[in-house]
Amino acid sequence: MGKRVKLTVAYDGTNYCGWQIQPNGNTIESELNRHLSELLQEEIRVVGASRTDAGVHALGNVAVFDTSARMPADKISYAMNTRLPEDIRIQDSREVPQDFHPRFCKTIKTYEYRICHRRFPNPCERLYSLFYYWDLDVERMRAGAAHLVGEHDFSSFCTSRPEITNHVRTIYSLEIEERGDMITLSVRGNGFLYNMVRIIAGTLLRVGNGTIQPEEIPEILAAKDRRRAGETARPQGLTLVRIEYPDYPDAFC
Amino acid sequence: MGKRVKLTVAYDGTNYCGWQIQPNGNTIESELNRHLSELLQEEIRVVGASRTDAGVHALGNVAVFDTSARMPADKISYAMNTRLPEDIRIQDSREVPQDFHPRFCKTIKTYEYRICHRRFPNPCERLYSLFYYWDLDVERMRAGAAHLVGEHDFSSFCTSRPEITNHVRTIYSLEIEERGDMITLSVRGNGFLYNMVRIIAGTLLRVGNGTIQPEEIPEILAAKDRRRAGETARPQGLTLVRIEYPDYPDAFC
Repeated sequence: MGKRVKLTVAYDGTNYCGWQIQPNGNTIESELNRHLSELLQEEIRVVGASRTDAGVHALGNVAVFDTSARMPADKISYAMNTRLPEDIRIQDSREVPQDFHPRFCKTIKTYEYRICHRRFPNPCERLYSLFYYWDLDVERMRAGAAHLVGEHDFSSFCTSRPEITNHVRTIYSLEIEERGDMITLSVRGNGFLYNMVRIIAGTLLRVGNGTIQPEEIPEILAAKDRRRAGETARPQGLTLVRIEYPDYPDAFC
Repeated sequence: MGKRVKLTVAYDGTNYCGWQIQPNGNTIESELNRHLSELLQEEIRVVGASRTDAGVHALGNVAVFDTSARMPADKISYAMNTRLPEDIRIQDSREVPQDFHPRFCKTIKTYEYRICHRRFPNPCERLYSLFYYWDLDVERMRAGAAHLVGEHDFSSFCTSRPEITNHVRTIYSLEIEERGDMITLSVRGNGFLYNMVRIIAGTLLRVGNGTIQPEEIPEILAAKDRRRAGETARPQGLTLVRIEYPDYPDAFC
């Protein structure tokens, strides 16, 4: 019986077709499997916590795998970082209990969505934010965001997937910071439906530009109708910042 | 007689061989000349304010050209941004007096140098910062930086070029901000020698890690010897933020 290892994985999603292995195209999952298998000299298949879409970034996605290799778990981060392409970097590697599962355990995830709000795009931010030209009232956005905090049915804020029937999730906090020309939405919750953060961002942009009133957010939630919310904001602005496992405090780096 | 037009140019320097036209390789200057010539239907050759190196970024470099085209100067930014590759974006275009010259007029330039200070690299910052692992004492860096502010002979802080004989420059301010894992040096002065900001950054890193004492900076300046200062920090961390023309207040956007 080998050990179970948890990796905290950061990546620039620009050059990948997302996390999950695809028949055509390079993915984060396939890069991890290939380099882990070469490093540990056995076939490794990671299980990821969050299957981010193409263009989405991560600072703290989580991948878990079992191995019988003798390399200490905490050394795997260093060894992998000499092998991986420079747009993927392991931030932490550690042994976790055999019953730890990156998706089925209770998790708290934090995402950031960045909006570069200026007259013309900043080329250095084009791959890591949404460029937005029109007026935005950040105080209105905060007032709208406040209605999303708490336990709600987020059917209006997701792209439906037939296998997901329960759309109730809890958002613990949704903060909006403005610093120079960068507006950052930071959202922490116990789970996120498909495209949920990007739809929240697109909806709060509409609140900010005046086409949705902050007070309409409860109605949009109650409608349970995707067409009532705003656009799905582009993936480049989204970063999966952190995944906490409250039942495994030692597993968090 | 046509008009003289000033462009404020932002670019991600990652995929360019710097500003200045090279026999082989793509440059910011050659992209501007090509697209301006196509847009205005006459041969345009810009004069740039700062010939940034390969990998260096800009939010506010300046290019000037003369044209007899009838397109209003302030419309050129919009027209150019539909033509340029997405890693170059004009931030402002305006008519300036015929005697305005981007290099020979008095200028105040602001550069930023970004240091990503963490245990493992953040892939999304790899092209826009220097990754630094070892301990840094930011208060020591600030103490060292204070000795560089003012009028000094910066011979120790430049890569020598035979055509430049006067190495006296004035730094008006040199501020160091730490925010999360990002340390940003912000330096404003009346002119910068070749590689000067990158050598200042490399030297202040040595002050931060303890291998140079803050009090040694005046001695390093006085030595007028490049070998006394720190390394030339990598270009990716450097951004030319802004160029002010104090004698032409209307030319500044």
